[in-house]
Amino acid sequence: MNPSELIGSRPVRPDGVPKVMGLAQYGADYELPGMLWGKVLRSPHAHARIISIDTSRAKALPGVKAVMTAADMPDQAFAYQGPERVQLNFWHMTRNVMAREKVLFVGHPLAAVAATSQAIAAAALDLIDVQYEVLPHVINVEEAMRADAPVLFDNLFTRGVEPVPDKPSNVTRINEIKAGDIDSGFAKADEVVQMSFTTEPVHQGYIEPHAALARWGADGQCEVWSSSQGHFVVRAYTAKLLGLNVSDVVVHPAEIGGGFGGKTVIYLEPLALTLSRLSGHPVKMVMSREEVFQATGPTSGSSMTVKMGVTRDGKIVAADGVFKFQAGAFPGSPVMNAAMCAFSVYDLENARAVSYDVVCNRPKAAAYRAPGSPIAAFAVESVVDELARRIGMDPLELRLKNAVKAGSPTIWGPKHAHDGFRETIEALMNHPAYKAPLGPNQGRGVASGFWFNGGGESTATLHVNEDGSIALATGSMDVGGSRASMAIMAAETLGVPYESVRSTVADTASIGYNFLTGGSRITYATGMAVVQACQKVIEDMRARAAMIWDVDIESVVWQNGAARPADPSVGDFAPLTLKDIAAKRAVTGGPIVAEVAVNAGGQAPGFSTQFCDLEVDPETGAVKILRYVAAQDVGRAIHRSYVEGQIEGGVVQGIGWALNETYIYNDRGQLENPGFLDYRVPVASDLPMIEAVIVEVPNPNHPFGVKGVGEVNIVPVMAAVGNAIRDAVGVRMTALPMSPPAILAALDAEAVSA
Amino acid sequence: MNPSELIGSRPVRPDGVPKVMGLAQYGADYELPGMLWGKVLRSPHAHARIISIDTSRAKALPGVKAVMTAADMPDQAFAYQGPERVQLNFWHMTRNVMAREKVLFVGHPLAAVAATSQAIAAAALDLIDVQYEVLPHVINVEEAMRADAPVLFDNLFTRGVEPVPDKPSNVTRINEIKAGDIDSGFAKADEVVQMSFTTEPVHQGYIEPHAALARWGADGQCEVWSSSQGHFVVRAYTAKLLGLNVSDVVVHPAEIGGGFGGKTVIYLEPLALTLSRLSGHPVKMVMSREEVFQATGPTSGSSMTVKMGVTRDGKIVAADGVFKFQAGAFPGSPVMNAAMCAFSVYDLENARAVSYDVVCNRPKAAAYRAPGSPIAAFAVESVVDELARRIGMDPLELRLKNAVKAGSPTIWGPKHAHDGFRETIEALMNHPAYKAPLGPNQGRGVASGFWFNGGGESTATLHVNEDGSIALATGSMDVGGSRASMAIMAAETLGVPYESVRSTVADTASIGYNFLTGGSRITYATGMAVVQACQKVIEDMRARAAMIWDVDIESVVWQNGAARPADPSVGDFAPLTLKDIAAKRAVTGGPIVAEVAVNAGGQAPGFSTQFCDLEVDPETGAVKILRYVAAQDVGRAIHRSYVEGQIEGGVVQGIGWALNETYIYNDRGQLENPGFLDYRVPVASDLPMIEAVIVEVPNPNHPFGVKGVGEVNIVPVMAAVGNAIRDAVGVRMTALPMSPPAILAALDAEAVSA
Repeated sequence: MNPSELIGSRPVRPDGVPKVMGLAQYGADYELPGMLWGKVLRSPHAHARIISIDTSRAKALPGVKAVMTAADMPDQAFAYQGPERVQLNFWHMTRNVMAREKVLFVGHPLAAVAATSQAIAAAALDLIDVQYEVLPHVINVEEAMRADAPVLFDNLFTRGVEPVPDKPSNVTRINEIKAGDIDSGFAKADEVVQMSFTTEPVHQGYIEPHAALARWGADGQCEVWSSSQGHFVVRAYTAKLLGLNVSDVVVHPAEIGGGFGGKTVIYLEPLALTLSRLSGHPVKMVMSREEVFQATGPTSGSSMTVKMGVTRDGKIVAADGVFKFQAGAFPGSPVMNAAMCAFSVYDLENARAVSYDVVCNRPKAAAYRAPGSPIAAFAVESVVDELARRIGMDPLELRLKNAVKAGSPTIWGPKHAHDGFRETIEALMNHPAYKAPLGPNQGRGVASGFWFNGGGESTATLHVNEDGSIALATGSMDVGGSRASMAIMAAETLGVPYESVRSTVADTASIGYNFLTGGSRITYATGMAVVQACQKVIEDMRARAAMIWDVDIESVVWQNGAARPADPSVGDFAPLTLKDIAAKRAVTGGPIVAEVAVNAGGQAPGFSTQFCDLEVDPETGAVKILRYVAAQDVGRAIHRSYVEGQIEGGVVQGIGWALNETYIYNDRGQLENPGFLDYRVPVASDLPMIEAVIVEVPNPNHPFGVKGVGEVNIVPVMAAVGNAIRDAVGVRMTALPMSPPAILAALDAEAVSA
Repeated sequence: MNPSELIGSRPVRPDGVPKVMGLAQYGADYELPGMLWGKVLRSPHAHARIISIDTSRAKALPGVKAVMTAADMPDQAFAYQGPERVQLNFWHMTRNVMAREKVLFVGHPLAAVAATSQAIAAAALDLIDVQYEVLPHVINVEEAMRADAPVLFDNLFTRGVEPVPDKPSNVTRINEIKAGDIDSGFAKADEVVQMSFTTEPVHQGYIEPHAALARWGADGQCEVWSSSQGHFVVRAYTAKLLGLNVSDVVVHPAEIGGGFGGKTVIYLEPLALTLSRLSGHPVKMVMSREEVFQATGPTSGSSMTVKMGVTRDGKIVAADGVFKFQAGAFPGSPVMNAAMCAFSVYDLENARAVSYDVVCNRPKAAAYRAPGSPIAAFAVESVVDELARRIGMDPLELRLKNAVKAGSPTIWGPKHAHDGFRETIEALMNHPAYKAPLGPNQGRGVASGFWFNGGGESTATLHVNEDGSIALATGSMDVGGSRASMAIMAAETLGVPYESVRSTVADTASIGYNFLTGGSRITYATGMAVVQACQKVIEDMRARAAMIWDVDIESVVWQNGAARPADPSVGDFAPLTLKDIAAKRAVTGGPIVAEVAVNAGGQAPGFSTQFCDLEVDPETGAVKILRYVAAQDVGRAIHRSYVEGQIEGGVVQGIGWALNETYIYNDRGQLENPGFLDYRVPVASDLPMIEAVIVEVPNPNHPFGVKGVGEVNIVPVMAAVGNAIRDAVGVRMTALPMSPPAILAALDAEAVSA
């Protein structure tokens, strides 16, 4: 890894200008001739049996071209099955896309129409007659676990317990992972802290609602244009739910207006395709903001208890946690991730994590930035903060003393393979503001976080154009600047200017498989495919130069963007640039192309340590963030501005989660704040500039040292804010959000107990 | 080449249903948010100097967002230059796209506007004030060659003559090719026939007018959606004319509503991009039919003299031809092709062809199906028909006696490398209808034709999807069924069902370079890339199967769509299909992909021999085609229906050219019939069913024996029709079209002279 001017610089973003100028095409921006508008009829009930759906009046409305229910899609077998990468229960997925026997949350789709206008489609929804048998519902995770709770599924028996229960339950799975012996660990502790916590589901809050345009050809060949975090996965899910061959579905990636994990799943695509099949027209569907809140995935709410012990000199000797996560209306919360990440920044001999995945009458949870880890970290990092207070040790010093490094054990088996965590702590210890004095009602909180980061399947193609410029394509949706980072890595590898590389995202018909853009895997795994494609082209260039010069390929090296004689003393061979060789491509074998697919292992986890200064208004309970410093090991920053943007964005979303965001349900299970006026995400005026401290401990498994950067930044935030509130005003907040009324109530309780 | 059920069959066409259902997206079907409409101001004069263009009133019209002239595009150097594959004079090309110093034909673009509606754009055109100095013009090729003709270019001096003339001329180039010694050849002849011919320019008559949607990003990154015969060539030309890097332009291929050679050039793309740059909006431009006729390429009109000699026993001993072709307003008619093809079906020791490329005040000629060859064939095959009459030999027998085969000389140097011509003659000799009796005023005409067929640069990608289905992409626009033929060849090579292969055309950002879809090169050259990509995937499959079975790759063979043990007696290895291996792709190296680029040589020429039965109404001169049988050597038919369609289509276009199609200019150089009402192409009711006789003499250089099929079918038609008229009513027509008035006039002249 030679030093380079390009790696870690801030070149112009390929996606920047189209977005700024309003020319980028998002999911809702596509149109086709003869296109219809589709709309979804959604359940007004949180839990009800569907007695009947009569669509005849809707079908008779002039302008209505198709009305569908779940009966128009094939049902799926009930089994944990499917393609290797799609270890999902499609019986559940098809019911999430459109209800069959029951509706399980307010907003659950149960029919859809396609009509010549949005107004007609909306009017037709009112003409669909549905008979329900309304059932009792359950929203809260602890309530859903009670023996007398309303049960969502008759065929769902808790897995992970022996013997398998004979009574259906909302608890879909119980899992325990552990290392060492926690009892003997706690026995060595001088101080033990145990606390319980709750967190609320929060929405990813992407600005762009879900949108899909779909066309089902009469020959069964289908096309979809939609905004997602992975058009290959949209293709796989959609084909599966509709009983199609994968090759029958081509998915075109739209620009994405935010995803954060929430666009790794499908909602509209199979409905739009089915309506297209029934009507013979292309069908476009766009969710309203209300639909996005009612029926797309937030991350889980939770109920957690964490107990940790420490010796007087700061060695954490045992940790134990119980994590109960809402999955929403179908199994599959990120609670296993939470259990695995919970204690993963600490070098622990004795630890245990027990997880519960619990269904309830809310929208099915979807991935959200480091899914599960921030929830667990809120509990664990709050407890660690209390441990530091008990023994009177600086919280960074306590973390440094117990920090994992390469070789440390994990709770789930294999040892940590990478460093990087200690370096984030040291970065903050050395930060001039960490020791800066604080005023009255001000406090400073510290927290850390862990995320696995991802590898996996990616494909890249590289084409040398006739003039030596480069067309670079991947199949990885660009959610956070990957077109720029791919172009940087390609330009650096080839030794050509960044501006000569045109970096794009290809559709599913034009490039090999790429798994989701998620898990902070793209710059790592897709980047590896890109670098390997460049290396393949360089080999090809050397061979062509050797052909032009009539020498052996071993006599040719590639340096600074040109083929050169390996022995510089050999005269008469002017370097051959890409442009030179491209001009001779026809006589040296034709177009210069490379396609490389990888299933990348060797990824390195992300570590982040952060501190937050804030001030609590004791009169109102309002929190003002004064300063926020987030250190993160990124391995190697490829495009520095995007890396900073990821860190800033993760912190901002975490602040919203910490202080304000929540779902307000009424007693009928209806969401009362499905909009950005009442669901309060942070805006610029709420925040100071977030200071991103980029720590670079290169990953030796990647040609440029890349680790993922997109997720771990959100993990510590809620705990850092909670710890700062504790520091500022002496109250330990154990429930999210830490909104003004909650803080006021805690201050009042503290005053009463004092 | 094993016999196969798939090769030569008639599976469902991938493009069929979308086209039939009206869902296919042609050039004019694309839209973008914020899109403007662009329109072109065209010259009302056939030849004039542009004194000034004042766009100020147009720019002031509300709704007008940009007005451009040639001054808004960079000028090009005057030189025969450019990328290897683009041996064009861009100084001419940019002036064809938009006039600079002069307008050179009625319809020549000289300004363009972009506005918020088509109506406003049209109104703005009327507000552009142009001052012209009108100059004398010249339409006809013989007139344009006169010493006193109005000269189009001051900087154009006839090439190919020594010394280079010091006076500019409309003759851009004179070329002579020859073999042997024609004088000694003619000395051996018993009969010599010399005749002169004229042909009119005819338009390709594609149903879809030219259309382009373009977006110029403020960062200089551009996208174009347009209908063409080669989006990579559109990219190259457009980038060159606008001074962009090739990588800055991405061209998306629209479905094409006919091209026939006429969509190998660009008209609107650089204008739409320039208007987009000036306005900051995407701009869409669609030609009217009138614009298509006035300003897009027909094939050349011509004036020709051909002299051939034959011995009494039917040996053609010498051939001489002079071919003068209209290039239109800029140099570059297909006259060199004409000279090379003219005598190429005959095994001649002594032959010469002299060609003249001549500019005149008409739209620049563009390629049209076997460009040049049908024009020359009209002359040569009419002369051969007269030779047969002189010596009293059946015209097929005369052709068979002189037919080229592998090893025969060519007039341009290398020997013929392939058979196939004799077989087309024999196919007609054996055709039961060839000896069928004819009635009064009925006649039978025979003619043959030659076309080189093409090879060249093509790229294909093959991706095995998660379920084992196949995504196959090429960068070759599908003008005549190539998606189907590629899918057939891929399915056959892989041993999988046709239905599991999804065959598409990828954009310029997603696949390697593909030269034009033209020259009958796609099924040959792109097909080779496809087959090689399949072979690469098969090697990969064998390696993965070997990994799964833990054996050497040599122990694995690929047969009938599955990896199998090479030694069938080895037990316990159930075959691994594509689906099986795809399911294990993650653990055997990741996605299964292949991209292959070729610069294919080894193509084999196309030969066609045809006969036509027709009846002439002596009262009106109208010709009714009674029967048309066209035999063509296709090497090997891949999709039989498409091959038949190519043959039928070429014959039908030739019949239109023979009987009706012509450009009618008034004395001001204005085209008086720019529409399908007055420019009469054949319709179904004008025609009998065309009988395609598929002759298959495989090309050993292609894995399935493919030769090109798209062009040679039009070559013999005009001569076959003319020879049949001669047979029916005794008059030799030497000018096209052979319309009722022309035939009546010839009959009258014959009656007078008789």
